[in-house]
Amino acid sequence: MTLGPSFYGVGLGPGDPGYVTVRAREVLATADRLVHFCRKGQRGNARTIADRIIGADPAREIALVYPVTTEAPVADAAYAETIAAFYAESAALLAAEAEAGRIVAILCEGDPFFYGSLMHLWRRLAPRFAFEVIPGVSGMSGAWTLAEAPITWGDDVLTVLPGTLPEQDLARRLKDTDAAVVMKLGRNLPKVRRALEAAGLVGRAIYVERATMAAQKILPLAEKTDDEAPYFSMILVPGEGRRL
Amino acid sequence: MTLGPSFYGVGLGPGDPGYVTVRAREVLATADRLVHFCRKGQRGNARTIADRIIGADPAREIALVYPVTTEAPVADAAYAETIAAFYAESAALLAAEAEAGRIVAILCEGDPFFYGSLMHLWRRLAPRFAFEVIPGVSGMSGAWTLAEAPITWGDDVLTVLPGTLPEQDLARRLKDTDAAVVMKLGRNLPKVRRALEAAGLVGRAIYVERATMAAQKILPLAEKTDDEAPYFSMILVPGEGRRL
Repeated sequence: MTLGPSFYGVGLGPGDPGYVTVRAREVLATADRLVHFCRKGQRGNARTIADRIIGADPAREIALVYPVTTEAPVADAAYAETIAAFYAESAALLAAEAEAGRIVAILCEGDPFFYGSLMHLWRRLAPRFAFEVIPGVSGMSGAWTLAEAPITWGDDVLTVLPGTLPEQDLARRLKDTDAAVVMKLGRNLPKVRRALEAAGLVGRAIYVERATMAAQKILPLAEKTDDEAPYFSMILVPGEGRRL
Repeated sequence: MTLGPSFYGVGLGPGDPGYVTVRAREVLATADRLVHFCRKGQRGNARTIADRIIGADPAREIALVYPVTTEAPVADAAYAETIAAFYAESAALLAAEAEAGRIVAILCEGDPFFYGSLMHLWRRLAPRFAFEVIPGVSGMSGAWTLAEAPITWGDDVLTVLPGTLPEQDLARRLKDTDAAVVMKLGRNLPKVRRALEAAGLVGRAIYVERATMAAQKILPLAEKTDDEAPYFSMILVPGEGRRL
């Protein structure tokens, strides 16, 4: 294969290396730099998926370490400033790599243009460099497939909600849709559960954690007795539309 | 690789063969039967994607020909009966293949459990046979990626709407979301356009047809002067949430 652009945003799918696309694998195999986001002292989810395909590769690796966790209150102005500075510095670092003639692949779990951190680098770099984004199987597709829960039937409306929304807003929107996915659970789980109760949907809700990975957990929300949830867990409310 | 189950529902992604997953390719290469849905006299979208990977393969091929088009009014009871009988007969035909010891792969464009025709076979066959579903890159992921339009930022709410919904309902839901995808356009395009106008969103809307394929068309809806749209076209309204 030939790599044209300087930058690749590589969607790696929900976790199982079998769900990585052919194009993503090509770029993993040949790019000069493999960039991933992570928290301090941890390996990022996207890099963990790539590890299972190409192994660790310190010579090519660039880790972008978040200065604060993604669960800090995003409405906080100081947080927003810190993280914006982090994206700006990261973009400058990667621009220098591209200017030195290197092909830079930025690894993303799921689908890059669907709530992806990549987007904050892409908007800074794409105006200056050729930038190819490779779509991936989304985390929610992995979740509803492994949960054996087709999400939308017939004319079902699907609403995707960040669990960070206020409880009243979550409840109102859950009441007004046929099918739902609630992302970004983490510490929002108790609030999301109350919103699902208010909408009368707890009985249909499925809790999914680390779908398609070895540590996958899938269970009816009604059977989940604790409130522990990683940030990358989600809740599915499958639609009940037209069965033919 | 080893194939365990009798049945595979194989998500093939939006069209570009580079966006097919590794697992889907394995199953394409080894299954005894490759099943696809199509209209009379046409090759189905999913089979067209598979053609580009494995070529035509008449010995393995089973075409399930819809008795009516997917654009007939679904509320019509006679239509529903006809199509339900078609799915029941198709399931019986494929069950006989599995009972004869053959591995049957049912090809799906996009992601199988997201508005997929496969679901109507899966619900009939999965209770009786081992059935693995392989998630795929969704058509909408292909669309927003190739349109260079990240769909959700920060805490954006995404609403996925079938264009078959009534105009008032479309307009109301479009007004009440941060980002939207309107699927199943076809003859619904004029109505969807009016609903977008009512919601004040025509200026942000992008029309996407056959994303990631050779015949791809992407343009601002405001610049689309005709009302011609294939069933597998869609409209994107990208979110405008938090840029960091």
